[in-house]
Amino acid sequence: MTEWTTPLRYKPYHQWSTDYLDLLESVIQKSSWRQAFHIQPKTGLLNDPNGFSFYNGKWHLFYQAYPFGPVHGVKSWYHMVSDNLVDWKQHDYALLPDSPYDSHGVYSGSAITVGEKLFLMYTGNVRDKNWERHSYQLGAWMDSEMQVEKITEALIENPPAGYTEEFRDPQLFRYQDNCLMAIGAQTESGKGAVLVYQSKQLIDWELLGELDYTTEDMGFMVECPNLVFVDNQPVLLFCPQGLDNEITPYQNIYPNMYVIGSAFNKETVSIENTSDLINLDEGFDVYATQAFNAPDGRVLSVGWIGLPEIDYPSFEEGWAHCLSIVKELSIKDQHLYQKPVIEMQELRQHHEVLKGSVQEENLLLSSPDKNVYELKLELDSRASGSLYLFADKQNKEGLKLSYNAKDDTISMDRSKAGIPFGEGYGSIRTASLKKQDKLTLHIFADRSVCEIFVNDGYCVMTSRIFMKDPQQTHIFLQGFEGDYTGDFWTLREMNE
Amino acid sequence: MTEWTTPLRYKPYHQWSTDYLDLLESVIQKSSWRQAFHIQPKTGLLNDPNGFSFYNGKWHLFYQAYPFGPVHGVKSWYHMVSDNLVDWKQHDYALLPDSPYDSHGVYSGSAITVGEKLFLMYTGNVRDKNWERHSYQLGAWMDSEMQVEKITEALIENPPAGYTEEFRDPQLFRYQDNCLMAIGAQTESGKGAVLVYQSKQLIDWELLGELDYTTEDMGFMVECPNLVFVDNQPVLLFCPQGLDNEITPYQNIYPNMYVIGSAFNKETVSIENTSDLINLDEGFDVYATQAFNAPDGRVLSVGWIGLPEIDYPSFEEGWAHCLSIVKELSIKDQHLYQKPVIEMQELRQHHEVLKGSVQEENLLLSSPDKNVYELKLELDSRASGSLYLFADKQNKEGLKLSYNAKDDTISMDRSKAGIPFGEGYGSIRTASLKKQDKLTLHIFADRSVCEIFVNDGYCVMTSRIFMKDPQQTHIFLQGFEGDYTGDFWTLREMNE
Repeated sequence: MTEWTTPLRYKPYHQWSTDYLDLLESVIQKSSWRQAFHIQPKTGLLNDPNGFSFYNGKWHLFYQAYPFGPVHGVKSWYHMVSDNLVDWKQHDYALLPDSPYDSHGVYSGSAITVGEKLFLMYTGNVRDKNWERHSYQLGAWMDSEMQVEKITEALIENPPAGYTEEFRDPQLFRYQDNCLMAIGAQTESGKGAVLVYQSKQLIDWELLGELDYTTEDMGFMVECPNLVFVDNQPVLLFCPQGLDNEITPYQNIYPNMYVIGSAFNKETVSIENTSDLINLDEGFDVYATQAFNAPDGRVLSVGWIGLPEIDYPSFEEGWAHCLSIVKELSIKDQHLYQKPVIEMQELRQHHEVLKGSVQEENLLLSSPDKNVYELKLELDSRASGSLYLFADKQNKEGLKLSYNAKDDTISMDRSKAGIPFGEGYGSIRTASLKKQDKLTLHIFADRSVCEIFVNDGYCVMTSRIFMKDPQQTHIFLQGFEGDYTGDFWTLREMNE
Repeated sequence: MTEWTTPLRYKPYHQWSTDYLDLLESVIQKSSWRQAFHIQPKTGLLNDPNGFSFYNGKWHLFYQAYPFGPVHGVKSWYHMVSDNLVDWKQHDYALLPDSPYDSHGVYSGSAITVGEKLFLMYTGNVRDKNWERHSYQLGAWMDSEMQVEKITEALIENPPAGYTEEFRDPQLFRYQDNCLMAIGAQTESGKGAVLVYQSKQLIDWELLGELDYTTEDMGFMVECPNLVFVDNQPVLLFCPQGLDNEITPYQNIYPNMYVIGSAFNKETVSIENTSDLINLDEGFDVYATQAFNAPDGRVLSVGWIGLPEIDYPSFEEGWAHCLSIVKELSIKDQHLYQKPVIEMQELRQHHEVLKGSVQEENLLLSSPDKNVYELKLELDSRASGSLYLFADKQNKEGLKLSYNAKDDTISMDRSKAGIPFGEGYGSIRTASLKKQDKLTLHIFADRSVCEIFVNDGYCVMTSRIFMKDPQQTHIFLQGFEGDYTGDFWTLREMNE
């Protein structure tokens, strides 16, 4: 498409031809940026993860989809199913924008199991004749055959008094005997808020109130709130849009943040003794993370690796974005740790043990055939040093990860990592670490994306990378002194 | 499309969506192989030129089109219009495969002006239930608004007795008071032939007989015969398929050849005193050339730069082939000369005079920004030498044109010129020249095609070139001794 006009973005799905989609898919399949083990759209655009859940013996994950091009056209939910959180099968569209309550987009939401079925709750987006937004909170039931049936009436027809139509992304969670729901909102004075609702029958939603979790202004809108309980402590993950940078520094256009509290008080609708706001990801491209308390006791999360309002190089190929790998959340010393789920080990293939000391100026650690690998490194943190990924032979181009031993910070620099994009928001991200003897890095590289877990998940740094030359697969180490140990695995493709 | 099945190739035009075509076009527009001043399909495949004519003050040229992919799907005629033989405007489809006589393809044909209208004659291709071919010779009228109306009944319903359904490509030409038509045919014993018909009213076609122009077997089929009169001498251009290589050596899968005679005898349906068969183009990719006696006295020709049954690298981009620039035909010493029409000069932009002597081993003549240029060179022909086009900085890769002074031959070697294709038919073509003091080369380069007119059009060598690196634009000269002179022009894009 040369121009994605508004009518084109809202053209009904059934009016697009399968020829068009087949062609788009065949063009996209040729791309060297296509990933091996990340959830990515077959065609078009993917954004928020939705409805992450365990139901009928399988993991279910949906995502916001616009299949016809790399733009935010009229959205649907696309359904992925997995036995192991790693190999995701494309199932089908779960929810299409085909009802009067969601004609302009089946927006984000969540899922919980209820008896024999999975209950989905989401926001229906409607534009009226004056192109004014109306947000309806809607429900649907999925059965064991993975057939989805929408509930014909809206569950919540209007935002409560005092709030605008910027009202979306319901997150269902069980609390004591009730089903609660947190949802992003905007006050009439234009401030971001999270509201909490309660229901017994899932159709009778009662507003408990606005969630009290901070004394600061949360920008003009809060998107994708997720209240989960990690080791019995409430953790709120959320995306405050327009947050004042003085409150918590961030560089992405909109941040994905979290607070930890000591307890959730339903009566006062508050999270007690909350921490400061902390960036959930210290890299470039994570937004709209969804988390849930899984029945196996783990708290699992998955993020959208992408940001609103930024042009990504893959747009020119007709596709955009991916989801993160699945992470397990835990708390230690009042800090949230994020680690790749143990199931990620199922992707491992060839193994190489790394061991030595950094003598050379430019130590070549490995040169995999392609950027599809897992790398674990343990480095002496007494001296500063840099790790280069996606590097060329001369180590002139690549993604640079630098550790500064003096102030215990880690920086990710993508200014020389392929086609520049989003540069208006800077090409370097820096995060503070907690002093420890060793610096540990746990890295998942997948062709055009890199997720780096620092110090056992104390911080995570994520970035898309669009190399012109997919042969830039070298890994170099510089500085750091002393010995290092590590492991390198090539990873297989996800079984689809 | 992953697989171009037969049903897909014959899917009606109206069942393809505009979205599909828009997407295909936008993908193709990004290609570095797209040309500046050659007629190329917006999408899909182009083959034979058709209906080349001058009507209502403009030049008209149609081509065989299959717009939905780079395959020989069900064909139509696409109409191009020009004021100057250089700037061609895309008009519209002129003939679609939508009648019972052309349901499986509007195949090749020609045009002549008749009164206020342009008369088109073409072959309708039909496959019956048993997928057996039927060929109908059909007619249509185009008016001054460029509206085309098909004549509902077939002009020639069946091939004459003794000939098979391999019967196509009618070429209309005026001869004395009549309109004659030459057409490609196959005898029941499976031999290639050209038949000649006559008509007064254009609907009453009478077979004059099989054209006598050679005593040799013309393979199993003759396609695209064109009888023109150059300086009053009959010249037959034609494509004998399966011609024995002993008769006239050729290396392309099928050759495009010509004979010159002293006179055309309508009564005996023969060309008298014909020359040997000669290759019309000594390069790699010319076929199905169409020529006509233009009202301004010139004989003009245009060829398809492409060959049947060969995979070209641009297939993977969803498009294929182009037409040659327009050439003017003349005869000198019983040899056909082909020169670019004088109007080609309208494309010239920046001019550079070349002059010097070849001292260095590797003389860099020029390094244009891109391979869109015209180059004229006059070289001393007493010593052998080579010219390299589309060359890299080190002159390791490129299209090599070598002159051998000993035996007066010229060779074109594309073995190092980009992505290899059609290699089964060799990567070198060699042509014999007539001894003269100077070797003159007149070259038109256009991104992925090169047309070289040697010794004022004594021979023409044409080749497609698909460089991986469009920066390979250097021009080197080696050998040749003595002085050279030349001119170099950058050329503008065709005004569409």
